[in-house]
Amino acid sequence: MTSKKVIELFYDVVSPYSWLGFEVMCRYRSVWNIELKLRPTFLGGIMHGAGNKPPGLVPNKFLYMTKDLKRLSEYFDVPLQSPTDPFEAMFQKGSLNAMRFVTAVQERQTGGDEQVERVSRELWRRIWSEDKDITEPASLSEAAMKAGLSDSEIKEVLKLSTSKEIKDKLKSATQKALDYGAFGFPLVVCHLDGKPEVFFGSDRFELMAHCIGEKWLGPQPGKPAARL
Amino acid sequence: MTSKKVIELFYDVVSPYSWLGFEVMCRYRSVWNIELKLRPTFLGGIMHGAGNKPPGLVPNKFLYMTKDLKRLSEYFDVPLQSPTDPFEAMFQKGSLNAMRFVTAVQERQTGGDEQVERVSRELWRRIWSEDKDITEPASLSEAAMKAGLSDSEIKEVLKLSTSKEIKDKLKSATQKALDYGAFGFPLVVCHLDGKPEVFFGSDRFELMAHCIGEKWLGPQPGKPAARL
Repeated sequence: MTSKKVIELFYDVVSPYSWLGFEVMCRYRSVWNIELKLRPTFLGGIMHGAGNKPPGLVPNKFLYMTKDLKRLSEYFDVPLQSPTDPFEAMFQKGSLNAMRFVTAVQERQTGGDEQVERVSRELWRRIWSEDKDITEPASLSEAAMKAGLSDSEIKEVLKLSTSKEIKDKLKSATQKALDYGAFGFPLVVCHLDGKPEVFFGSDRFELMAHCIGEKWLGPQPGKPAARL
Repeated sequence: MTSKKVIELFYDVVSPYSWLGFEVMCRYRSVWNIELKLRPTFLGGIMHGAGNKPPGLVPNKFLYMTKDLKRLSEYFDVPLQSPTDPFEAMFQKGSLNAMRFVTAVQERQTGGDEQVERVSRELWRRIWSEDKDITEPASLSEAAMKAGLSDSEIKEVLKLSTSKEIKDKLKSATQKALDYGAFGFPLVVCHLDGKPEVFFGSDRFELMAHCIGEKWLGPQPGKPAARL
């Protein structure tokens, strides 16, 4: 048996393409011989650090993305739905508190990324499926509750999420993504023989599989019906 | 037997991702039940009309694209190689003359898109494989010669390419792409029951296959070895 290849997934719950990438990578964790490491990061810091602009500012690109996400959501079986005002949700309200919260969940969890996975998914569900807030403490608590955290755990995570330690941890994860060449999310870094192979977006899985010597079985492995 | 689905491919030979999309669509012409219509278009007009900026202006994005194209070129088996100065080649020298030339080839060819396909490929090979000019009449002639056009045909096409008729035809193809929502290339428009289904880029073939009821067999259909 060969040792598992380490794959890091840098993401922010404010990014819908990250949700697609996240679900696909979580599904392939048990299909490919990989160890998936979730890296909650802050997209705002990436855009600023890379000098990038949101793609949605170009009207035709915005219209295309809306359509593209609708089609991909169905094909990937991820219940994505655009918020009424995506610009307000993504850029005015943003995700700094949410990603600090997720970072705090990861900091205090023990034994694997199960909690951070569930909390991230619930936050995505709020902003990118149910058009709900992800900035207020009450919103974060509700997501964590749905993810199965206890009241006392949530209280602890909320407190921890405003600490310097967590702020610095999120900053450092964001810097790490920038160092890998990030200019947006999701960013998947596959470690092959000590060399990082970097993939941006949710449309390079087939190529990624080819590079790591695995087989791409579509976004819903084990569900052939969805592939026609 | 069901009637063939019409698929339009809008492209510019200055765009490397268009080359990937072009070769894949040409390969699938005999695999899927489709009628492929080549639509030579001017990328400069698309960027201007859509208010879009070249992605390579963001340094991390430029570095990623260079790496991405290298990997995809191998995986797609298209001999892509970046010119020494991609910015000069793409944006200072540009492709207006080249795309007028391709438009003229299409205008005067008879019986299918064979000539326009071969000339487009030779132009891509010049700029995106051999780091050669595609702006001068001598360059265009050389490409056309390699594509199998006779001296007299080339002379005729060169003359035709500076006519108002051809300038207008290229403008109108570019406007058509904008009307379909283009903000870059390649743009693939699949006509399904009279409704256009639009795909941008060279990374939606699997989804496209799903949408048109065909099977995606990788970028090199019939060559399973390349897919691992």
